[in-house]
Amino acid sequence: MSYDTDNIFAKILRGEIPCEKLYEDDETFVFMDIMPRADGHCLVIPKTPCRNMLDATDAQLTACLRTVRLMGRAVMAGLGAGGVTVQQFNEAVGGQEVFHLHYHVLPRHEGVGLRPPGKMEEAEVLKANAEKIRAALAELA
Amino acid sequence: MSYDTDNIFAKILRGEIPCEKLYEDDETFVFMDIMPRADGHCLVIPKTPCRNMLDATDAQLTACLRTVRLMGRAVMAGLGAGGVTVQQFNEAVGGQEVFHLHYHVLPRHEGVGLRPPGKMEEAEVLKANAEKIRAALAELA
Repeated sequence: MSYDTDNIFAKILRGEIPCEKLYEDDETFVFMDIMPRADGHCLVIPKTPCRNMLDATDAQLTACLRTVRLMGRAVMAGLGAGGVTVQQFNEAVGGQEVFHLHYHVLPRHEGVGLRPPGKMEEAEVLKANAEKIRAALAELA
Repeated sequence: MSYDTDNIFAKILRGEIPCEKLYEDDETFVFMDIMPRADGHCLVIPKTPCRNMLDATDAQLTACLRTVRLMGRAVMAGLGAGGVTVQQFNEAVGGQEVFHLHYHVLPRHEGVGLRPPGKMEEAEVLKANAEKIRAALAELA
């Protein structure tokens, strides 16, 4: 199980691929999922390389979870979500598609199920949701 | 958002309700989900009270994630899983049913989808899977 430095999230971290960024600190980076399964679906990743949870260090896991909690609070405040579903996939059989550790933060609203995966969202919609989340983050900080 | 000390996982921690226990350390406790969505589906919880991720301390999150990683490795070794899906639900709208923080560790096998939730497993089956996971844990320790 090795780490491929050309995975898409490594490219996003290096600025080689654009993203709708929500937050970063010394250890973690957060951006909108371009195929959201819920409005405001975002991804929390460590800035340092690891394939998934199975090879992550304590420091990487701790930093990610602190940011996942922050993003959970931000999407509840910013999007009026009533709850948050967190998912994290390890290896292809476990559902992983990009091999850089990432946590899915899925804002949930009453009566609204998760959408099937794989449908690209309009950039305008991503940006509008991102702006609400960033505004909530500014309030929480 | 308060913590109800009579939730079923608090009762399991107090030994008031039986469970098929897999592991414990100073800060966390792991047991088989009685309605598994995959063979070997287990739950990692902190020993100290918190409702979910949103009110969890850094220490609770770190301890849980360290144990989730350990259990991921154990189910891969013990059950021959090729991957692991991790899920964590916050608030009822987010999918949470028991209001004590818990991480679902779902062992995954090629071509086998997650089963629908809600079906109670036979005690013998839970025990047989638990024994394989405990044996793998003993090897990993």
